[in-house]
Amino acid sequence: MGEDEREEVFDFDSFHEKRTEELTELLDKRDMKQLRDRMEELNDYDVADFLAQIEDNRMPMVFRLLSKETAAAVFANFEAPEQERIINSITDSELSGIVEELYLDDAVDMLEEMPANVVKRVMRTARPDTRKLINEFLRYPDNSAGSIMTAEFVDLKKYMNVRESFARIRRIGEDKETIYVCFVISADRKLEGIVTVKDLLLADDDTVIEDLMETDIIYASTTEDQESVSEKFSNYDLMALPVVDNESRLVGIVTVDDIIDVMEQETTEDFEIMAGMTPSDKPYSRTSTVEMWKNRIPWLMFLMLSATFTSMILTSFESMLAVQAGLVAFIPMLMGTGGNSGAQASTAVIRSLSLGDTEPKDALKVMWKEWKVSLLCGISLAIINFIKMLILDGWLLKNDSVTILVAATVSLSIVFIVMFAKVVGCTLPILAEKIGVDPAVMANPLISTVTDAVSLLIYIYVAKLILHI
Amino acid sequence: MGEDEREEVFDFDSFHEKRTEELTELLDKRDMKQLRDRMEELNDYDVADFLAQIEDNRMPMVFRLLSKETAAAVFANFEAPEQERIINSITDSELSGIVEELYLDDAVDMLEEMPANVVKRVMRTARPDTRKLINEFLRYPDNSAGSIMTAEFVDLKKYMNVRESFARIRRIGEDKETIYVCFVISADRKLEGIVTVKDLLLADDDTVIEDLMETDIIYASTTEDQESVSEKFSNYDLMALPVVDNESRLVGIVTVDDIIDVMEQETTEDFEIMAGMTPSDKPYSRTSTVEMWKNRIPWLMFLMLSATFTSMILTSFESMLAVQAGLVAFIPMLMGTGGNSGAQASTAVIRSLSLGDTEPKDALKVMWKEWKVSLLCGISLAIINFIKMLILDGWLLKNDSVTILVAATVSLSIVFIVMFAKVVGCTLPILAEKIGVDPAVMANPLISTVTDAVSLLIYIYVAKLILHI
Repeated sequence: MGEDEREEVFDFDSFHEKRTEELTELLDKRDMKQLRDRMEELNDYDVADFLAQIEDNRMPMVFRLLSKETAAAVFANFEAPEQERIINSITDSELSGIVEELYLDDAVDMLEEMPANVVKRVMRTARPDTRKLINEFLRYPDNSAGSIMTAEFVDLKKYMNVRESFARIRRIGEDKETIYVCFVISADRKLEGIVTVKDLLLADDDTVIEDLMETDIIYASTTEDQESVSEKFSNYDLMALPVVDNESRLVGIVTVDDIIDVMEQETTEDFEIMAGMTPSDKPYSRTSTVEMWKNRIPWLMFLMLSATFTSMILTSFESMLAVQAGLVAFIPMLMGTGGNSGAQASTAVIRSLSLGDTEPKDALKVMWKEWKVSLLCGISLAIINFIKMLILDGWLLKNDSVTILVAATVSLSIVFIVMFAKVVGCTLPILAEKIGVDPAVMANPLISTVTDAVSLLIYIYVAKLILHI
Repeated sequence: MGEDEREEVFDFDSFHEKRTEELTELLDKRDMKQLRDRMEELNDYDVADFLAQIEDNRMPMVFRLLSKETAAAVFANFEAPEQERIINSITDSELSGIVEELYLDDAVDMLEEMPANVVKRVMRTARPDTRKLINEFLRYPDNSAGSIMTAEFVDLKKYMNVRESFARIRRIGEDKETIYVCFVISADRKLEGIVTVKDLLLADDDTVIEDLMETDIIYASTTEDQESVSEKFSNYDLMALPVVDNESRLVGIVTVDDIIDVMEQETTEDFEIMAGMTPSDKPYSRTSTVEMWKNRIPWLMFLMLSATFTSMILTSFESMLAVQAGLVAFIPMLMGTGGNSGAQASTAVIRSLSLGDTEPKDALKVMWKEWKVSLLCGISLAIINFIKMLILDGWLLKNDSVTILVAATVSLSIVFIVMFAKVVGCTLPILAEKIGVDPAVMANPLISTVTDAVSLLIYIYVAKLILHI
């Protein structure tokens, strides 16, 4: 495809910007009819994006131009602040209209982020059956399959034929999150099979669902963790996953677009935990200063206090280090190298565990591999450091305290420190997984505090050995 | 849903294990007919999982029991080592059958991981038109939309009506990656619109596609980065995304199941970069010791050598620190606190940038927020540290060098160090994004090297100020 090397003619981003500009122009000209027509044509996400950018006082007014269906779809694409602003500026009957149009999972997501008074008003305006469902869904534990599922799915019976199934899909499909995967249930709502629209389209009109449905069903239970749900989507390439209660009754489905959000959320959580922060569902831009302080201070405090051990070690060997003062200068480098080596090993293993590539039973294999890698890394670093210390510190910077023996002490310490850091770095996450703790907790900050103290001890004992101090 | 609090009756994992056991039993009993029938019933992923677990010499034999369609689907679910083993133990005509059955993107994925001799054999056995397509697809840049797309999609013409469209879907749909999103193209293959099977099902049989199709199309260009493709899936909740060349001709589609893999791959890459490793496409379990050494040593080496600055600072203030020897003991704690504070800020900002929540233009807003957070964190840490030093180090551990002035020096240094680390930690990733470098590079290891040196300088100047040394 030689053409691809030429400059691109189409630019998606600038194309989109131009559309936003066009909408802004129509708004400035107060050409509301044109504006409404354009908004109805565009993608819900783009309309939400446009509305979020216009000033607070005009936004609800523009939002109210939308048809009920578009309004609900755009509303689902808003972030919490915009949703709250809209709710606070529309009438009860408009609110009720939107809530009824929303998919149940979007309604539940929204309510989880709203202040109590808004939740009350939404529940008051909702229809009784919707209110009951919302209440049920709100009660599932955070991050469970139940909390992310939706109730809008197509259910079929196994005695239906293809023609009847299509008729049912046509009748009830409009408001369903997906019509492409249909769920076959018994009279008491037990899940019996799955049939896709592709199967239906490729079959004869008279084929009975029972002969067509897949009975080897991949499903989740309502209380199952969303991370395990997203693993099933990734392994089995699913479009939708049925969620059953503990009596095997179908209560909802999770669709793949929700899983993409779950994956983003879980990844963010891992990043936060690995950097020593309390995970939070809120995006950075909407987290207040005090919330950020609350998320960050616990680990900072804990790690600062843990460093007391390192201080105590340093204090107790103060006199020894004073004999050969040049040694102190290399402590930060040694600790840094230990911390970085450990972080590499722990990050690699944590990621491998979370992708299911490594399992706790592989512990010995992983440790053996890390041991070999650490030997290679330690020796390479030691050689370069030895040369660097003699040439740069000793010869060019004329630091008299850097003798061949001091350079040997530091270099040999590097080998042991890297080996210790890498083996601890790979072991702690596996141990955590084994005892059911999130391995991400065992990441960089914690490991570097451990390696700091041990690095120092290694350095001191190597110095005693080589320098006889 | 009170039932959910009771213990769960169904256990998906043990259910699956039991099925694997059943297959193993059939294999041990050499009941090949039963085994084949069960494998044909099960999910492709589970069959691949089962085959990967049986010994090398029996595996290809069991694989050959499968029907051509199942064999291809199972093959696509294998990791590279199993794929290679299969290719090396089947005949040319069997290989050709599998390659023709595979979706083009799976075939291309496989070839990217195979050694040259295997690639040669696969290409030799492929049909000429397949070979031509594979060659074309292999030429797209790594991680571009072109490299992850597939050529198996349903195309319609805008003058067709719904009845004709369904006839075409029924005729060609069997082998397509998705039939639910159909792509409307002109005679010269330019993309004109998108229509879903849902639209088709809910419309009258005589409706013409042109009146039904969505023309506000979200698409990608062949050379577009896969990260930007996955952002479109996440924003617009897509099932499939058309990929066009620079003359607007439809050349392929990306489906949502591929995006889940892309997201996992991109996340792994971010984790690796942030822990100072060269990102690699290979899972941990399949990366050799030497490859791991190659991925890890560059940053370790660079960071070790950068620590020379810190050593030089320590050396030049050696005499000053010797006057008040107790000061040295707190250097690791100060550097650690600086590094952890910086890592928190940089991780939060990097994640926020990659989710599109923060943009480079928000730099000042982010810095202002981090400045406030760092003030809160710094002061809290300083207060606790001051009390801890006086009570634990001074009083309980009877460390005479810890006076009120020394405690004040360390505590005041903490405030400045945390503030410096957080502001640098949030600024570097934004700067990187601005100049088009991956912000993840500016993560933990690099920032901690910078904060190490600066923390030390801050400590020394605060000591000069308070202790007059």
